[in-house]
Amino acid sequence: MNRLYHVPLSPFCRKVRLCLAEKKIEVELVEERYWERDPDFLRRNPAGKVPILRIGEKNYAESSAICEYLEEKHPTPPLMPSDAEGRFEVRRLVSWFDDKFHSEVTANLLYERVNRKITKSGYPVSANVKAGAKAIKFHLDYMAWLLDRRRWLAGDNMTIADFAAAAHLSSLDYISDVDWNRSAVVKDWYAKIKSRPAFRSLLADQVPGFPPPEHYTDLDF
Amino acid sequence: MNRLYHVPLSPFCRKVRLCLAEKKIEVELVEERYWERDPDFLRRNPAGKVPILRIGEKNYAESSAICEYLEEKHPTPPLMPSDAEGRFEVRRLVSWFDDKFHSEVTANLLYERVNRKITKSGYPVSANVKAGAKAIKFHLDYMAWLLDRRRWLAGDNMTIADFAAAAHLSSLDYISDVDWNRSAVVKDWYAKIKSRPAFRSLLADQVPGFPPPEHYTDLDF
Repeated sequence: MNRLYHVPLSPFCRKVRLCLAEKKIEVELVEERYWERDPDFLRRNPAGKVPILRIGEKNYAESSAICEYLEEKHPTPPLMPSDAEGRFEVRRLVSWFDDKFHSEVTANLLYERVNRKITKSGYPVSANVKAGAKAIKFHLDYMAWLLDRRRWLAGDNMTIADFAAAAHLSSLDYISDVDWNRSAVVKDWYAKIKSRPAFRSLLADQVPGFPPPEHYTDLDF
Repeated sequence: MNRLYHVPLSPFCRKVRLCLAEKKIEVELVEERYWERDPDFLRRNPAGKVPILRIGEKNYAESSAICEYLEEKHPTPPLMPSDAEGRFEVRRLVSWFDDKFHSEVTANLLYERVNRKITKSGYPVSANVKAGAKAIKFHLDYMAWLLDRRRWLAGDNMTIADFAAAAHLSSLDYISDVDWNRSAVVKDWYAKIKSRPAFRSLLADQVPGFPPPEHYTDLDF
């Protein structure tokens, strides 16, 4: 059976999990404590990162390369538009969330509050947490600006860009770091995506020492 | 005419410049002092990054999304294989260089030595420079491992993965931070890519205050 080596709250793993589930590709989820640098793990992926998707004897690394691969091998249901302009916009937004949102928000909030404790690398740096709390407002407003003009983030249909954004926001929601009252359109968008069957596995995640808030699994949050 | 807003030694801009030149798409190069946060610039790209490719009235941001877009709109000459496995490998390696190599090597060497001075953000942190000098050895060895098995980094043909790697290495070569004697196959690979007409514009770059070493432009380096 296919395997996904992952960390439950990693937004990059969650993006891949959403693509796999939406395309109904079954995988066994295997938690990977990547920070322990297990030699077997490094053999599977010299970059030392999660996620790694194992199909047969082959290991696939790098979340965006994996999602594009899944889209090419399993085109139904489509998670990318068919035109070059539309595909550009999906890829631009995936980079926006996995690069800019990640460094400005996810790293400052999730990694400070959760990953430091799990990987035993010190206490949260409060200046970083403050910077993350400030930056997420700008990002939620940018999403609202997009969603005022489009049904989904990259256009009229749900794409990998929505999964990239939802992956980051769902991990932050697990630690109550998303103010859903800031924008009605963003909340409506998240409610739509949260209610998809593909999302169920994410809502069932439990991280020892970090119980999720009640609203995390609630579809009427 | 098309325009590319860029910074000469930015590896992300160089990757796009190589794709444009290889596909013979003419652009006017406009240097962008992104760290000055000019309002016009931020209007073109709210992410505040280079490169930005302007085609007609539209601005394209995020270097990997731009390269994939160019590949779809201008498929000749191809810079991606046609099969899903091959395309996965190209994208995996582009992420390897733009993410792992970038944070471990480029940020520690180029950004410490050059960008800090240009953007007036303090002196190089010597611990970072040391970490970068150590990490580039591992990366050159990984490239050698790949090139012992393949003609180009991702397979039998030159792809965007080669341009991603060459973009980082050429910027580092501008400040003499690449030990070309470490691996003959890596040196041969770089000699092949450096002699392409698409590379000429990169070899003509001049950064005030940082004259390139003589071997930088030499095809027999």
